[in-house]
Amino acid sequence: MKNYVGYKCSICNAEYPPVSVLYTCPQCGGNLDVILDYPEIKKKYHIEDITSRREQSLWRYIPLLPVSDPGGEGTPLRAAGGTPVFRPMRLANSLGLQHLWVKDEGRNPTASFKDRASAVLVARAREIKAEIIVTASTGNAGAALAGMAAAVGHKAVIFAPKTAPQAKIAQLLVYGAHVILVDGNYDAAFDLTIEASKEFGWYCRNTGYNPFTAEGKKTGAFEIWEQVAIGLVSGDKPLCVFVSVGDGNIISGLHKGFKDLMKLGWLETMPRLFGVQSELSAAIANAFDAGNESIIPVNSTTIADSISVDLPRDGVRAVRAALETNGAYIKVTDKEIISAIADLGANGIFAEPAGSTALAGLKKALGDGIIAPDDPVLVINTGNGLKDVRAAMMAVPNAAIIEPTMNALKKYLDNKGK
Amino acid sequence: MKNYVGYKCSICNAEYPPVSVLYTCPQCGGNLDVILDYPEIKKKYHIEDITSRREQSLWRYIPLLPVSDPGGEGTPLRAAGGTPVFRPMRLANSLGLQHLWVKDEGRNPTASFKDRASAVLVARAREIKAEIIVTASTGNAGAALAGMAAAVGHKAVIFAPKTAPQAKIAQLLVYGAHVILVDGNYDAAFDLTIEASKEFGWYCRNTGYNPFTAEGKKTGAFEIWEQVAIGLVSGDKPLCVFVSVGDGNIISGLHKGFKDLMKLGWLETMPRLFGVQSELSAAIANAFDAGNESIIPVNSTTIADSISVDLPRDGVRAVRAALETNGAYIKVTDKEIISAIADLGANGIFAEPAGSTALAGLKKALGDGIIAPDDPVLVINTGNGLKDVRAAMMAVPNAAIIEPTMNALKKYLDNKGK
Repeated sequence: MKNYVGYKCSICNAEYPPVSVLYTCPQCGGNLDVILDYPEIKKKYHIEDITSRREQSLWRYIPLLPVSDPGGEGTPLRAAGGTPVFRPMRLANSLGLQHLWVKDEGRNPTASFKDRASAVLVARAREIKAEIIVTASTGNAGAALAGMAAAVGHKAVIFAPKTAPQAKIAQLLVYGAHVILVDGNYDAAFDLTIEASKEFGWYCRNTGYNPFTAEGKKTGAFEIWEQVAIGLVSGDKPLCVFVSVGDGNIISGLHKGFKDLMKLGWLETMPRLFGVQSELSAAIANAFDAGNESIIPVNSTTIADSISVDLPRDGVRAVRAALETNGAYIKVTDKEIISAIADLGANGIFAEPAGSTALAGLKKALGDGIIAPDDPVLVINTGNGLKDVRAAMMAVPNAAIIEPTMNALKKYLDNKGK
Repeated sequence: MKNYVGYKCSICNAEYPPVSVLYTCPQCGGNLDVILDYPEIKKKYHIEDITSRREQSLWRYIPLLPVSDPGGEGTPLRAAGGTPVFRPMRLANSLGLQHLWVKDEGRNPTASFKDRASAVLVARAREIKAEIIVTASTGNAGAALAGMAAAVGHKAVIFAPKTAPQAKIAQLLVYGAHVILVDGNYDAAFDLTIEASKEFGWYCRNTGYNPFTAEGKKTGAFEIWEQVAIGLVSGDKPLCVFVSVGDGNIISGLHKGFKDLMKLGWLETMPRLFGVQSELSAAIANAFDAGNESIIPVNSTTIADSISVDLPRDGVRAVRAALETNGAYIKVTDKEIISAIADLGANGIFAEPAGSTALAGLKKALGDGIIAPDDPVLVINTGNGLKDVRAAMMAVPNAAIIEPTMNALKKYLDNKGK
C-alpha cells in the first residue's frame, strides 16, 4: 500500500499491518491512526515539492496521503479542498485581534468540510475495489460522499435521520445516492450502517470509524500550514485554530495533519487547537473539562445539526487534540452560535450554525482571556449557510415589505429615521 | 478613467465620454457598451501577461476591465470568479457528445454567476466614491451585491419581490444589506430602484441598466477562453456555449468578453452562443424566433426564478449575442429544467433550476440536430442548487423511511429487488 505502513490504535497502541479494510481496533474498539512511511516521504520529497504544485485542490498533498491518485480528472472529486482563507479586517478590529483569518470550507464542491474525508474515502474505495460505499450522516458527510461518488460514478448508500434538514436531504438525492432515512437519530443510523456494511460487504465511510476519514480531514491542516502557518515567522506566538466539534473527527484530523508535518520537519511550531461545542451537545468538552478521556453520551438538542451528536465517535483523540497542543474546549450557547452567523455574514462569509460555532467560541475565549489580542487566530467555517436557511433567518431581523412606489419608500425610510 | 474611453449605445450608436455615472442611453434608452482602449491594452499586454497571472479569481483580468484594482485583499471580493470547469464524461457519453465541459458558477462566493457583476460594480463604486449601491433583484444579483459589498464594508440596499425564495432572502439579510421587499414583481422592484437612485443619489447596479454589469459578466467569457477555447486547435469546430437567459445580461456579457478578446487578437474563432429560456419566460427567444429585435414582454411563470422575467432589460444585445455568433435560442419546458437538475447531480454538480436550464437546452438542441456529436460544447451552471432546495426535491423521488434495524433494512432491500 502506498505511503503508509499500517495502523496504530489511539487507545491501546496495538499495531496492525496495512490491510485493505480495517475500521476501529479489533482488540479495544479504539480509533485507529494511519501510520505514514515518514522516512520514505522525507527521502522523496522536500517542502517545495508540495508548495510548488499547481493543483489547487487537496490532491496537491497526495504524497502525504495513504491513497493513490484516484484519477477523476475534470470532475468535482478533483475540486475538493483548496478553500480560501480570508482576512476580515473589520471583524478582527471589532474583536480587538491583531491577526485573524477565516478559512471558508463552505466553498467546497458540496459546500462543507466533509468533502475532504469523502474525497479521500472514494480514492480509497477505488484503490481497494470496493464497489459500494455506505455512510451514516446528519447531512454534510452524506452529501459529501454522494457528491464525490457521483463525480466518478461510484455507488453510495446513505443512512440519515429522517429529521435532517431538507436542504441536506435534497443534496443527497440529487447526487443520485441511494438514500435511506431512518426513524431514529444519527447514532441509530451509525450503528445500522456498521451492521449493514458487515452483512453486505459494503465499504463503510462512517466518520471516525473508518481511519481514512481523518486522513482526508488532515488536508485542512495542510492548507492552513501553507496558507497561514508557514508565513508566521519564528518567535511569533503559535497559531490558534478554532473549529466546531461534533463527533470529534475534524479536530482529530487537523491534529493528525499538523503532527504529520511536524514529523516530517516541515512545521516548526504546533498550532493550538481549540474545539468549540454547543453546550447542548458537549460530550467532548465535558470530558476535557473533567480532565479525563471518558466520553459520556449526552442527549443533544443543539440547533447546529452538523455537530449535534449524542455519542461522539472520535472523542478521545478529539480531547487530546486540544490537550496536547495547549488548546482548550469551549462551550457556547445556541444563541451565541446564531449571533455569530450574522457576524460572519457582515464580512461577506455565509456560515451554517456548525460553521459559526467556531467564531462564537473565539468570542467567548477572548472574553475569558484564554486568547490574547496578539494571538494569531484562524477560525474555520465548516459549512455553507445555504445548507440551513432556517437557522440563518433566526440570525437576522425580517425585511420590511412595502408597496412598490416612491411614496411608500419615502414613508418607510422616514420611519427608519434615515 | 482607466482602460476605457467611453460608452456607445447598442441601439442608436451614440457615443459618450467616460463620465462617472451613466446608465442607459440618454437619447434612446438603449443599453450602453463600455468601450475599452484596445490599442493601449494591446501595446501594454501580451496574452502571456494574463495567462501567467497567479490570482485565480476574476481579478486576474483587471487589465481588461474598465475599473481600477478595488483592493479588498483577503476578502470574498477577491474570491469572485475563478470557477472550475468540469468534464463529465458519463454525461457526455449519455448525450453522445465527444467534447463536453460544464462551468460551475455555483462555486462563486455567494454561489451564483452574479458575483462577477457585483464584484466589478463594487470596484466601480469605490472608484467613483459612491457611498450606497442599490439594486433590484430576484435574489441572486442581490445576494451577490450584498456579499461583495459586505466583504469590503460597502453599503448596499436591495429591493426584491417578496415572493423571492427564502434561501435567497436569507442570504441578503445575513450579509447585512438593507433589504426592502416589494409587494410586486421584479419589474416593479426594478423601476422603483431606478427612481430611488435618482432621488437619493444612490449608485444603481440594476442588471443591464448599469453598463458595468456586462463588464463583470464578461469575465466568464475570459475564463472559458483560458480554460477551454485556447486549447481548441485551429480547424476545430467552434466552441458552443449554452447558458440560460432571463433579462439577457449574462449572454450579452459573455458576448462582450469574447468580442474584447477578438479585438485584441487573442481569440481566433468566436464561440457560438446558445441562449436557453423557459418557454414560460421566453421574451428574448420569441424575438429571436421572430427574426427581429422587438422584445415583447411576457407574463412569466417559470419555476426557474433567476430567469423569470417579464420584460428583459438587456434583450436586444441578448438576441444579437446568438445571432452574431451563429448561435440560437432554445426554449425548454419547466419539466425539462427540473429533469436536468438530476442529470447534473448524477455527475456531482448541484444546480439551481436556472443553472440546469442550460443543459436542458443542450439536450433539446441535440435532439433537434442543432448541435452535432462532434461539436465541442460548454454548459454554464449559473447557480448553486442549494439556492432552491424546493425545486431540487421535485427532481428526485422521495427517500424511503425505515426503522433503524437490520430486519427493516433487509425487508426494504428485498422489496427494492436488490
